[in-house]
Amino acid sequence: MSVTAAMGFRAIGLAAGIKASGKPDVALIVNDGPKDAAAAVFTGNRFPAAPVLWSRQAVSDGAARAVIVNSGGANACTGPQGFADAHEMAEHTAAQLQEAGSDIGAGDVLVCSTGLIGELLPMDMVRSGIDAAVASINADGGQAAAEAIMTTDTVPKVSVRQGDGYVLGGMAKGAGMLAPGLATMLVFITTDAEVDSAQLDAALRYATSKTFDRIDSDGCMSTNDTVIAMANGASGVRPNAGDFTAVLTEVCADLARQLIADAEGASKDIAITVHAATSEDEAVEAARAISRSNLLKCAIHGEDPNWGRVLSALGTTAAAFKSDQVDVAINGVTVCRGGGVGDDRNLVDMSGRDVHIDVYLNAGEAEATIWTNDLTADYVHENSAYST
Amino acid sequence: MSVTAAMGFRAIGLAAGIKASGKPDVALIVNDGPKDAAAAVFTGNRFPAAPVLWSRQAVSDGAARAVIVNSGGANACTGPQGFADAHEMAEHTAAQLQEAGSDIGAGDVLVCSTGLIGELLPMDMVRSGIDAAVASINADGGQAAAEAIMTTDTVPKVSVRQGDGYVLGGMAKGAGMLAPGLATMLVFITTDAEVDSAQLDAALRYATSKTFDRIDSDGCMSTNDTVIAMANGASGVRPNAGDFTAVLTEVCADLARQLIADAEGASKDIAITVHAATSEDEAVEAARAISRSNLLKCAIHGEDPNWGRVLSALGTTAAAFKSDQVDVAINGVTVCRGGGVGDDRNLVDMSGRDVHIDVYLNAGEAEATIWTNDLTADYVHENSAYST
Repeated sequence: MSVTAAMGFRAIGLAAGIKASGKPDVALIVNDGPKDAAAAVFTGNRFPAAPVLWSRQAVSDGAARAVIVNSGGANACTGPQGFADAHEMAEHTAAQLQEAGSDIGAGDVLVCSTGLIGELLPMDMVRSGIDAAVASINADGGQAAAEAIMTTDTVPKVSVRQGDGYVLGGMAKGAGMLAPGLATMLVFITTDAEVDSAQLDAALRYATSKTFDRIDSDGCMSTNDTVIAMANGASGVRPNAGDFTAVLTEVCADLARQLIADAEGASKDIAITVHAATSEDEAVEAARAISRSNLLKCAIHGEDPNWGRVLSALGTTAAAFKSDQVDVAINGVTVCRGGGVGDDRNLVDMSGRDVHIDVYLNAGEAEATIWTNDLTADYVHENSAYST
Repeated sequence: MSVTAAMGFRAIGLAAGIKASGKPDVALIVNDGPKDAAAAVFTGNRFPAAPVLWSRQAVSDGAARAVIVNSGGANACTGPQGFADAHEMAEHTAAQLQEAGSDIGAGDVLVCSTGLIGELLPMDMVRSGIDAAVASINADGGQAAAEAIMTTDTVPKVSVRQGDGYVLGGMAKGAGMLAPGLATMLVFITTDAEVDSAQLDAALRYATSKTFDRIDSDGCMSTNDTVIAMANGASGVRPNAGDFTAVLTEVCADLARQLIADAEGASKDIAITVHAATSEDEAVEAARAISRSNLLKCAIHGEDPNWGRVLSALGTTAAAFKSDQVDVAINGVTVCRGGGVGDDRNLVDMSGRDVHIDVYLNAGEAEATIWTNDLTADYVHENSAYST
């Protein structure tokens, strides 16, 4: 299902030899129309990878008809040769699709890469992979595509929602470097709804701001983050903007939760909600600061309801609150009341995977949630050995 | 030596039973004059511990004659009772010193605590510890005091420097939560130089801004950070302000390096220097962002010269640079040149404990260094089990 759940999209994923493991590493999505509206959101990192530079330019006209993706190499910090390679991935994909009877131009092909930074792609393998992908792409290839974009992911992430007469489907990869302003994360969403590119762009920006921007696995921002949405109008249904945005946000929220649940080495999924803030921005700032405390993340790993580490992190922010009016509940037990000792910490049950930290600033009426993970020895091991 | 290296200071450290381990947990420093100039710098955390609130007020007149310190409990987030306890520590210390013949008032006694947040101190033990400390304090007690302020530290940290006719000595504790705007860190420095409190304050602020403010072990800021300096003029020497500041900065730098070297679970000490920035502030911002990348810290632990993670972190900052003009050297090998692949990464020898990361922004002439550590499974273990 995934990106082929909506009518008029084909996809495929396969192994081209880019990954030493021999696992799938090339994915292709093609939009067969009739329309070609597209929107995308990219990393805010100031070292954007070559495919980000290409795709940002290619999608700027609000149209796209295909996406070529490789895992096994990020094509980031690779200089002019890296950009030439990203460009060639688009050109070669368009040329092969044309040979197969399509009229897609290179300017309508978006490119994404994920993997290790600082190494050139093995372009021979990439080209062969594109050839094979064009030869085998089909209307049921969504699941194969979702598998081919994985790196350290342990499971593919897909989501499908039914709108009022149309379908939205998506896939995502990412299991580390998940952070603000997006994360090492590639997300592809397709729909057969008829929405123009301006509406699609607005809906996508809203949805990402409430979902992917609010997961923060390890505070690290990637050079390659990309979220792409394509709408082909194949259903003939032109949805109400509010309804469409809501369904898109649901798909994004579902994928975001799957990303956090598969974060590298994590044993706990932590939802940090800051309540009663004076603004949503301040609630986000406070929740994000708490989510980045390594000491707190270690404590949660040890199933220790260490509210002192929550306050320590909160105390570094500029959010409006009075230090003697802050309450903290962990899994429903108010362990900190008025900035001091609250209910018995031994009442907190942290044996499950889900941990809820609720912080009440008692300063206003806004709230926001950031999702993060615990910090574990497995995270250290996985990220110590990643490139070796 | 430590805080008793300078003439006219006495100190002691002993076990009062506050720590379950039975290790030393109360330290006392007394300044026997003739002068009583004092200056202090405190945490910027918005949940300052009770002893921070007390000491900030007590030192505001630029004078202090004693410092009472306990480990085994931070007396932070303990509300009005916590403040009453910090106050009582000062009152009880002054009363005991008066009984022993001194004329020290409670307003001249500074108070510091370190340990777990959110628990009241066992005041019976604290009082007995103060009694015993006053009874046994002596001119050679600096080393005992340095041992009594330890928490997860594995070694005491002391430093002594000889000025031109005067002596500066200090001790420090801290092995985690080391972060900007100071860190869970208590530092005590004494000198027999004759400097007034305004000069001492200026020198201390300069020294901490260049030393303790530039170590960042894990990005976490404590509620209890305090650096206290006391000058009694016992040497009769009135040093030149520049010379005094330089010697004080040396002592602070020495103690800061010892803190990083003893950071929880660390196996590598990492010096991150950002060169050729447009301002020192931007160099600090960039170096700090790099120092906080968990992914980079894991890579260093794995002896992997992963310069992509350096650039990813740098790319989240607002420092002035062009992405194709940044060079990165790790232990002297320029592994990244012009934002892309540089010399062979296999040439980098990372087998030693010290790792130097040099980032050249090639945008200006300022530079700054932040010292940090790698992220290890031991860090996770130590901080998962700390309060249980």
